[in-house]
Amino acid sequence: MALYVYKFGGTSVGSVERIKAVAERVKKVHDAGDSLVVVLSAMSGETNRLIGLAKEMQEHPNERELDAMVSTGEQVTVALLSMRLHELGCPACSYTGTQVKILTDSSFTKARIKDIDDKRIRADLAEGKVVVVAGFQGVDEDGNITTLGRGGSDTTAVALAAALKADECHIYTDVDGVYTTDPRVEPKARRLDRITFEEMLEMASLGSKVLQIRSVEFAGKYNVALRVLSSFAEGNGTLITYEESQMESALISGIAFNRDEAKLTITGVPDLPGIAFKILGPIADANIEVDMIVQNIAADATTDFTFTVHRNDFSRAKTILESICADLGARKVTGDNNIVKVSIVGVGMRSHAGIASTMFKTLADEGINIQMIATSEIKISVVVDEKYLELAVRSLHSAFGLEQA
Amino acid sequence: MALYVYKFGGTSVGSVERIKAVAERVKKVHDAGDSLVVVLSAMSGETNRLIGLAKEMQEHPNERELDAMVSTGEQVTVALLSMRLHELGCPACSYTGTQVKILTDSSFTKARIKDIDDKRIRADLAEGKVVVVAGFQGVDEDGNITTLGRGGSDTTAVALAAALKADECHIYTDVDGVYTTDPRVEPKARRLDRITFEEMLEMASLGSKVLQIRSVEFAGKYNVALRVLSSFAEGNGTLITYEESQMESALISGIAFNRDEAKLTITGVPDLPGIAFKILGPIADANIEVDMIVQNIAADATTDFTFTVHRNDFSRAKTILESICADLGARKVTGDNNIVKVSIVGVGMRSHAGIASTMFKTLADEGINIQMIATSEIKISVVVDEKYLELAVRSLHSAFGLEQA
Repeated sequence: MALYVYKFGGTSVGSVERIKAVAERVKKVHDAGDSLVVVLSAMSGETNRLIGLAKEMQEHPNERELDAMVSTGEQVTVALLSMRLHELGCPACSYTGTQVKILTDSSFTKARIKDIDDKRIRADLAEGKVVVVAGFQGVDEDGNITTLGRGGSDTTAVALAAALKADECHIYTDVDGVYTTDPRVEPKARRLDRITFEEMLEMASLGSKVLQIRSVEFAGKYNVALRVLSSFAEGNGTLITYEESQMESALISGIAFNRDEAKLTITGVPDLPGIAFKILGPIADANIEVDMIVQNIAADATTDFTFTVHRNDFSRAKTILESICADLGARKVTGDNNIVKVSIVGVGMRSHAGIASTMFKTLADEGINIQMIATSEIKISVVVDEKYLELAVRSLHSAFGLEQA
Repeated sequence: MALYVYKFGGTSVGSVERIKAVAERVKKVHDAGDSLVVVLSAMSGETNRLIGLAKEMQEHPNERELDAMVSTGEQVTVALLSMRLHELGCPACSYTGTQVKILTDSSFTKARIKDIDDKRIRADLAEGKVVVVAGFQGVDEDGNITTLGRGGSDTTAVALAAALKADECHIYTDVDGVYTTDPRVEPKARRLDRITFEEMLEMASLGSKVLQIRSVEFAGKYNVALRVLSSFAEGNGTLITYEESQMESALISGIAFNRDEAKLTITGVPDLPGIAFKILGPIADANIEVDMIVQNIAADATTDFTFTVHRNDFSRAKTILESICADLGARKVTGDNNIVKVSIVGVGMRSHAGIASTMFKTLADEGINIQMIATSEIKISVVVDEKYLELAVRSLHSAFGLEQA
């Protein structure tokens, strides 16, 4: 008999009916003889409602108090699910983060899990009970309630799976798995049966919002087999594991894209040591995060320096560059916030040459100009004009044969 | 400098604006240099909303789960008040029943407080913080969340005042004190400056809903000076203490009444030992509570046995009596659910004769027939026809001079 940790997010427990549906699903697993720990988020909208109340009280709500208040959302859903399981004749018991206990540091609103005391959970499982645990929350050494930050319920589930050495951790969400790319852009996008942690991390960081990066990192670190499934449909979802795919593995697992970036270029910068710091220092001081960075050296011993920032930071970053342009002896500052980043991701590219050239040829054949290139061990990203997003994604999806299983 | 425990009920924290008003009031006390522990209920309606959700999950909600869920109501209000105090520049810290900790037995939904660990509260007070504690809740030895039953926030406040040896415990509510009688019945009713615990207990048990009986008992037992005040108006409210009033104390402190009773009589019962048990046994078995009991012996060695029950139980009790009437050899069963109980309450009657006769003469002068009489050391109750309620209350209020201070 297996031990599973199931996590259901806010939309999966967003109404009385949906909580009842979750209970039915849980009961089936219990009746089949498997052991089950269920982690729940708050009902969708509840956390934001509570934060709204907090902001009416205090402009910048005290974070200790905020965590104590916001944690009530999950406390309600776990009790409701446990009641429903009792009604169905399925023994169950709910726990808050304090009760488990899920020990964290004291970084309110973004606490890190330090330890989990699984004694009570193991005792309940041994008695045949379903254990229902409030996600997103913990308790510090002084008994203060903490929360783990957005998406923290995924982290709770993975941490419990690691502590209990569960066979699999299932994350139930409103999509039925991880896709080769966004089906709204490429209708031929296909659900992946499995994907590696590294690929999932690259996909997630590039804008595929299925899982929180932190929970994937956590699962990778503790080797928890993670499966993403739909709360609302049957199916096996996508398994995220260390194991690479089958022998004849696909070169590329998926295509991610990000519409949230903007590009800034400062041209004719004298090519002297320390110039990158002189340009990016003031940007960092303004708390603006930089993503891709490219530097070309021109024939005249000056350099063109290009980088991307979040689109929201575009005009602020441009103003900063313009203010330092003269001091740097640079020629001029240009910017473009009508760009997108498109990336191909796959562990297959480690052992296969020619993947970059296939990507560049495919885009060239479609007449798409590449403005920037960045590579990592399992990812190649290009920046192109925003108008080419759909064309680029579809042509790459086809070029790498992603529509076939 | 004094130490106070203030308790605000659900209507006093029923909206963002009201919580802000409570914060202003609390800050004033803090600024004046006094130490303050504040106990809050859930926002009015919240507890019932949560119980409603629970009942959609389970016909008879699991009580452990119900307590865990319902306790979130206070967890939210204490965090909100603490945030508001921070916003006003008043240092504050909130605690749940688990955090304080308020140790109770494991009788979910009606737990009893066993012990309070006041270490953290004392440390916070010593640092000049206002301590805000969730009312109505505690934690058992195994870390399960418990609740104290309806009105439990009053009990929390009194228990904290006892543990901390507070100078006074203030119960803020929607009335500005304890009155000589209900002002809706007798507009000349006057707020009492002080009342004894015993009088308050009799008034409360007779239908004056200002305070929960349990919290008054608790305050009496631990000699906590209790003050009832309005959240919405200024004033000193009513102090409830052991000390009896001034030398020339009033004979009577107040007039209570109860419209919720109904009267049942079984006549012509053979006057044999054990007859009272034979009549009331089946009533108790049906879980019906009996209030007043009167038995008269007639000349023919039979007896008429009369008692009152809650009006909701009237027809059930009548059916039971009718079913046992023949077995008892009794003549017949009659009933009346158009009655009220009117009581005069006062510690003064201990040391003054003639109070009962003043009461009976007053009612006789108004042509009001007395159907039943019951007395205790500090109370005389009569049952009269419901139509005489207002007349009885007003004439007694005047006869005992209650409109004068």
